[in-house]
Amino acid sequence: SRTLRLAVIPGDGIGQEVVAEGLKVLTAVLPADTKVESTEYDLGARRYHATGETLPDSVLEELKNNDAILLGAIGDPSVPSGVLERGLLLKLRFAFDHHVNLRPGKLFPGVASPLAGDPVIDFVVVREGTEGPYVGNGGTLRTGTPQEIATEVSLNTAFGIERVVRDAFARAQARPRKKLTLVHKNNVLVHAGHLWTRIFNQVATEFPEVSTDYLHVDAATIFFVTQPERFDVIVTDNLFGDIITDLAAAVTGGIGLAASGNINPSGAFPSMFEPVHGSAPDIAGQGKADPTATVLSVAMLLQHLGLTDEAARIETAVAADLAERVGKPARSTSEVGDALAARVAG
Amino acid sequence: SRTLRLAVIPGDGIGQEVVAEGLKVLTAVLPADTKVESTEYDLGARRYHATGETLPDSVLEELKNNDAILLGAIGDPSVPSGVLERGLLLKLRFAFDHHVNLRPGKLFPGVASPLAGDPVIDFVVVREGTEGPYVGNGGTLRTGTPQEIATEVSLNTAFGIERVVRDAFARAQARPRKKLTLVHKNNVLVHAGHLWTRIFNQVATEFPEVSTDYLHVDAATIFFVTQPERFDVIVTDNLFGDIITDLAAAVTGGIGLAASGNINPSGAFPSMFEPVHGSAPDIAGQGKADPTATVLSVAMLLQHLGLTDEAARIETAVAADLAERVGKPARSTSEVGDALAARVAG
Ligand SMILES: CC(C)[C@H](C(=O)O)[C@@H](O)C(=O)O
Ligand SMILES: CC(C)[C@H](C(=O)O)[C@@H](O)C(=O)O
Repeated sequence: SRTLRLAVIPGDGIGQEVVAEGLKVLTAVLPADTKVESTEYDLGARRYHATGETLPDSVLEELKNNDAILLGAIGDPSVPSGVLERGLLLKLRFAFDHHVNLRPGKLFPGVASPLAGDPVIDFVVVREGTEGPYVGNGGTLRTGTPQEIATEVSLNTAFGIERVVRDAFARAQARPRKKLTLVHKNNVLVHAGHLWTRIFNQVATEFPEVSTDYLHVDAATIFFVTQPERFDVIVTDNLFGDIITDLAAAVTGGIGLAASGNINPSGAFPSMFEPVHGSAPDIAGQGKADPTATVLSVAMLLQHLGLTDEAARIETAVAADLAERVGKPARSTSEVGDALAARVAG
Repeated sequence: SRTLRLAVIPGDGIGQEVVAEGLKVLTAVLPADTKVESTEYDLGARRYHATGETLPDSVLEELKNNDAILLGAIGDPSVPSGVLERGLLLKLRFAFDHHVNLRPGKLFPGVASPLAGDPVIDFVVVREGTEGPYVGNGGTLRTGTPQEIATEVSLNTAFGIERVVRDAFARAQARPRKKLTLVHKNNVLVHAGHLWTRIFNQVATEFPEVSTDYLHVDAATIFFVTQPERFDVIVTDNLFGDIITDLAAAVTGGIGLAASGNINPSGAFPSMFEPVHGSAPDIAGQGKADPTATVLSVAMLLQHLGLTDEAARIETAVAADLAERVGKPARSTSEVGDALAARVAG
């Protein structure tokens, strides 16, 4: 028998609703001898307004005593932009060294893509999660005046790039097509871009079976809509990864289906799984949110913890559910969760 | 009678071919009493290999004696990434203070979009052209070693943001829908993002008729494929503008149709007009390149110089030509140029 210690951070808006369905499916899929010991953490806009805290050190410490973290969504219009994003979500990713931000882009059969034709899309983006323009380095001078200047400093290290690039090569190696595309902007951001390119080419020599490719980020966005089939594994920096994974979600049926994992491959700290979508305050509390992205994030969580069969059963259940949605009226958040829980249990 | 002094930089790859057609259409559209005095500048990969020069100071000086610059495309795989981009193209944009980088996104009738349905797309992106992550600030330490670090510094000034934001508001004000969307990432890049947001909100008070909107850049990419109709005028920083305008080109029928102007609104230095596409070395010299983006860039050039009727005639000719392309075999670069020249002359 085994116990999974799970930290749950529902967060803001629809985060609460989708996480409930994710846990429902998790419970349904686990074998009888595997228990979940979950602890819910009240973090996000409510706590910030009540106490001024975003992520107290004591909570950060407690979170470490878990096998994984399931997060719903962070952000609310009542909180100034950046406070919860930087003070909670990014703080977790950086504190727990989540350097592999894994974001699959898969168009499931039956799902409508906004793209014409019937593209076959099945790639995965490996987004660096602990460096680049996301480090928070920078500042302002003469703030609030007509002479204000503001800087943002992107920090990139050979160490940080190499570990994520190597992870991406290993993933490409394990896939049938064995193809890896580096996305950057090395013709303009020459300092960081040349470092990424050098490390990428170095690590490539260790993976002779993997075919490689380079695209500027602007050109990559074109291929996402004109030729998404060309992508297998993509590796890119934190900011470019943020941008192209929302685009990837859009072309694979929408942000309601896009799962992600913030992974610390060493296991030194718990990895964190979350839907790519935000807190969607406009539809919060109405049972309208699609919990599928969270359920698929739960599958990634199980995969990460070695529960490979259970992860696969969730994926199969989601695929079957999506195929049956065609032409049917929309269901509520909990109806989708119930249907998926029934499938994985059955 | 009037004389237009035009500097022509064909550049690399298909640049030569498309610029020839652009000039053909320009000559055809101008009234008899308007002369073109054009000077061609040999800049790009060939000159770099021959002399090591990208943009000599003497050439930069000469370029100033022109009313406008027409540029084809810059870049070749034989030159290390960044050398021509930073040393020639970006050097021109910065030296001539091209702070308004104007990029229309319009789906002409008859043109196939990769998007399903029949979206109506007609927006313009006002991309800041002289600041942000494009300034070239940054560097490397312990270069070439496993301990290398690389930085890229994005510089943003209230002065630089305000002038481009005001330009974008004025453009929105002049359009029927009067809508302006700011695109940034102010929940992560809080220093630059908050400065952009503050200036945007300040200038908005001067344009009460313009409705405003804010989107994070990642979310914006979603709307480009799911709801492109929602955009009227967009203002954004240099890097985000680079990324979203390639995406915009993709959804409006491809990079073969996307025109741009690098504009110095004060007229202190000549503005520069160029297709958004690159030098496409794979198809260079084969007469396969579509010159339409260059021809539309010529229309923007004429518009900028006050030749409004001539600009409109080119737009009309392009629209008619595109509508007639449906179902026809592809024509060569010069056949398209001939057809457009005949239409504007007729
Ligand atoms: C909410 C925001 C900080 C976050 C990011 O930019 O990484 C989100 O967009 C994402 O992609 O997970
Ligand atoms: C070639 C490159 C430097 C340029 C840019 O990044 O601005 C191009 O992509 C563009 O959009 O004009």
